[in-house]
Amino acid sequence: MNGLSHHEMTVLFFALAVLLGTARLLGELATRFRQPAILGEILAGILLGPTVFGAIAPEWSRLLFPTDGNFPVALHGLVTVSISLFLLVAGMEVDLSTVFRQGKAAFHVGLLGMAFPFSAGLALAWFFPRLAGAEAGSDPLIFALFFATAMAISALPVIVKILIDLNLFRTDPGMVVVASAILLDLLGWNIFAIILGMLGGGGGGISHLGRTIGLTLLFVATMLTIGRWLIDRILPWIQAHTRWPGGVLGFALTGGFLCAAVTELIGIHAIFGAFIFGVALGDSGHLRAHTRTILEQFISFIFAPIFFASIGLQVNFVANFDIGLILVVLLIGSAGMISGCTLGARMSGFKAREALAIGFAMNARGAMEIILGLLALQAGLIRERLFVALVTMALFTSLTSGSIVQAILRRKRPVQFQDYATGKKFNVDLGTSDPKTAIRELARLACAGTEVDPEVAAEAVWRRERAMSTSLDHGVAVPHARIDGLKSPQMAIGISPTGVDFDSMDGRPTHLIFLMLTPRDDQRIQLDLLADIGRTFRDPVLVERCSQSRNFTEFLALIRSHLGERHASE
Amino acid sequence: MNGLSHHEMTVLFFALAVLLGTARLLGELATRFRQPAILGEILAGILLGPTVFGAIAPEWSRLLFPTDGNFPVALHGLVTVSISLFLLVAGMEVDLSTVFRQGKAAFHVGLLGMAFPFSAGLALAWFFPRLAGAEAGSDPLIFALFFATAMAISALPVIVKILIDLNLFRTDPGMVVVASAILLDLLGWNIFAIILGMLGGGGGGISHLGRTIGLTLLFVATMLTIGRWLIDRILPWIQAHTRWPGGVLGFALTGGFLCAAVTELIGIHAIFGAFIFGVALGDSGHLRAHTRTILEQFISFIFAPIFFASIGLQVNFVANFDIGLILVVLLIGSAGMISGCTLGARMSGFKAREALAIGFAMNARGAMEIILGLLALQAGLIRERLFVALVTMALFTSLTSGSIVQAILRRKRPVQFQDYATGKKFNVDLGTSDPKTAIRELARLACAGTEVDPEVAAEAVWRRERAMSTSLDHGVAVPHARIDGLKSPQMAIGISPTGVDFDSMDGRPTHLIFLMLTPRDDQRIQLDLLADIGRTFRDPVLVERCSQSRNFTEFLALIRSHLGERHASE
Repeated sequence: MNGLSHHEMTVLFFALAVLLGTARLLGELATRFRQPAILGEILAGILLGPTVFGAIAPEWSRLLFPTDGNFPVALHGLVTVSISLFLLVAGMEVDLSTVFRQGKAAFHVGLLGMAFPFSAGLALAWFFPRLAGAEAGSDPLIFALFFATAMAISALPVIVKILIDLNLFRTDPGMVVVASAILLDLLGWNIFAIILGMLGGGGGGISHLGRTIGLTLLFVATMLTIGRWLIDRILPWIQAHTRWPGGVLGFALTGGFLCAAVTELIGIHAIFGAFIFGVALGDSGHLRAHTRTILEQFISFIFAPIFFASIGLQVNFVANFDIGLILVVLLIGSAGMISGCTLGARMSGFKAREALAIGFAMNARGAMEIILGLLALQAGLIRERLFVALVTMALFTSLTSGSIVQAILRRKRPVQFQDYATGKKFNVDLGTSDPKTAIRELARLACAGTEVDPEVAAEAVWRRERAMSTSLDHGVAVPHARIDGLKSPQMAIGISPTGVDFDSMDGRPTHLIFLMLTPRDDQRIQLDLLADIGRTFRDPVLVERCSQSRNFTEFLALIRSHLGERHASE
Repeated sequence: MNGLSHHEMTVLFFALAVLLGTARLLGELATRFRQPAILGEILAGILLGPTVFGAIAPEWSRLLFPTDGNFPVALHGLVTVSISLFLLVAGMEVDLSTVFRQGKAAFHVGLLGMAFPFSAGLALAWFFPRLAGAEAGSDPLIFALFFATAMAISALPVIVKILIDLNLFRTDPGMVVVASAILLDLLGWNIFAIILGMLGGGGGGISHLGRTIGLTLLFVATMLTIGRWLIDRILPWIQAHTRWPGGVLGFALTGGFLCAAVTELIGIHAIFGAFIFGVALGDSGHLRAHTRTILEQFISFIFAPIFFASIGLQVNFVANFDIGLILVVLLIGSAGMISGCTLGARMSGFKAREALAIGFAMNARGAMEIILGLLALQAGLIRERLFVALVTMALFTSLTSGSIVQAILRRKRPVQFQDYATGKKFNVDLGTSDPKTAIRELARLACAGTEVDPEVAAEAVWRRERAMSTSLDHGVAVPHARIDGLKSPQMAIGISPTGVDFDSMDGRPTHLIFLMLTPRDDQRIQLDLLADIGRTFRDPVLVERCSQSRNFTEFLALIRSHLGERHASE
């Protein structure tokens, strides 16, 4: 068998390690600044590719990411499999019934959100192709259709994340946004599939094109009806008769690969098949949460970062950065999408403010826009200049949509006690069982760095504590007070191995104490923090584990992984 | 970027779908016959490769698995990444502390289990190289060393599975077997790494070889001391400061890829680095069960089947099937391994029967032997004939070890009620709330196909029931009786939507009824089945869900996935 040489293998593993490591690192960093991880992942590729690393150290760059021999072929294969699996998972998140449940509103927003930017993009690219970044020699109709589609694409995963962050996911406008984005994604990808078909059909003429479009529609229709029904029947059988979850995992990936091959054979891209299979699979109520979790977590934390980082390897983002083109793309795309969706939402009876928020939320484009651009680039439909503009628009809209929606709706991100917990105000070994002494000790910690007198704070907390015990269940207490002149909430966390007597309901000693000082005039934040602590520590197992943590890092790690597990199993 | 053509992409996805689908299917089938899944996965490759599919339909075979162009390169890249990840997970199962805890016994069994087959193999391959399958022109010393190592390799995953199946995993002999196999694996792979180094060092002579061996030992020593310590420090930090479990997953794969690259650079194979990194990673107590589960399940159900099936694509198993060579390999390998391990176990104070069982358990070779052979084949160290012999030995010993150990120890596989549950004796809608009527109805089902009179059986069960209620907690009852003349246990399962009054301790109606008839003279099986049902349905959530299942398939699926989840979280 033809294969990679010893040297190429070494390079492949180094390249994978560097790509994945850098992408995950910058992805985490982006998350830290409350930005989508994809921003960091793309940035990792830009740093490692011709834009930065290749420009600074061209020899080293050629050594790590060779452009000839077998290495690029192997990497291309891996990246293509990665992106198909990413689209499989993206498809699984598409819940068709949501669209029908939101009914009229979803159709209004989705269809107008499609029609406005699509026609704006089509008009621009048809009448002023140069302005839209068309290169000499490209087919004007196909280019215009692509440009129009690119203006009208949305990105479900980013939108869902924004809605969850703003606590809007389960609200009326939230569900309309999700349903409309699903509709938009389905429409957009189908149109794009047809464009790819037109591109491939250059030789065969109109009959070949008709065949591609016909087969594409047939494939989608079959998968979303018979395919969906069949998968829903097969899944329980697989779960009953195979080792769990291996049977379902194998089925999901086999089906995804098969549909990818079919769409590639039809003449459109493999990822489209994987996406549609994901839609059909994710729709089945028989797909267990645990299987979903394994697929989602492995794919979005391993395959997706490798894919997004690999994008930067192919394009020089500085050399192809055309600010004029970027502004055109951003303007046409955003104006079309926001106005279309806002109008659609108004027509469905939403108030002006909510309708505007829906419009801005729909304008977050994220991964989907980037993938669309990449496929067009690889198909020779567009050049680097427009690709960079599309990536920039995708990142820019993903970054800003959240804050804009938040400002329009005057929403605040829910307060979390973790935001105020710090290793400097953390005592793992409270040496007392007397609540008053414990409070005094923690108040000293909490007041450090502020202008509040610890004695005054301790006195206020103790007064509140005597009025009624702040003890929660299973050994947690939350002594607190509002303090005059305090600028921002201050929290000190104490662990008592022997236990402090906080007069708890269940009569047991308290091991975990959160002392909270909040500004006098902000009643809201105190309640929010209390609620968050209560929610976080409702599981006695977590309290037990946290009471034994030896330092702040371990304490935080326990909470994070516990919340992660709880989230995954919900 | 150089890449796969449209056609090659189509082929790649089809090939992956066929490989994964067939491998999982036959793997499940093998499991159904209580054989290791790897048997089915290898068989899938043999069916799809030159041995069967290629011989029957050579053109179709060339179409699906082309041997020229970019396809083989991309597949090779994917397969190499798959096998490295498989070894990463295999390494994670290696628990170094087990070896020390078992102390003397593990060292006796491990070292003699290494020494005996190794010296037998070395002697044979040195003095009678042809008999051992050496080809003209190969270096006699390197070949002899490889052959010796191949005789002395063990396979932890298969051995662990056999021990669990026989309920021996947590027993004294079981833990000695695991510890010895770990030791053997570590030794064997280190020796093999050195052999690979010798092979690569052909040009550079003795100093180059010394460098490779030195670097290998340095790498292993560093990773298992400083590396292990460092990983144990880094993990809690990652869990505290990154999105969970993405941070840890990314870290695990980045580290695995990096170590793979390092060992490939040293001149030994990439999988060795991934394996050693897995050992260092798996040893950390900070690696959470959920992270392990995601890695293990995704890798062993997706990457491993693709890898094992791909083996069959490369070799014609019929044309290279040399029965003489197979017998030699099997004889030398098994005789050496079994006698060495048995002697080691006797020296550590085990009784003759237990020592012999330990010897046979250690002789299961599974995946490790196959991977060793494949690397030697790819390195040009051996030819197809010996490779097929090694694969055959691996499969044969994996298949037989379980039954032989079972026979020696006179162990029985633990009884499970699922073995006696059948869709034909399943009633989803018991239309009564009277226990006597319910029992009569289920007794009729249970007696179908036997010579037992349903009325007699019902009477016996009812007599037992009146003596004391067989109701367990949360709405499960297990009416039962031993019946004269019955050949094998018979079970009927009934679901009562409205509930039957089985006089339960908690006073609530019974929704799930297992009626059990067992042979009069086999007291044991009745107790075992009762215990198994009690264990399975200890979770009220499962009972609740099962009570609502609409057919037998759904009922079974619920139980399987529930037990799978419970197993994963333990």
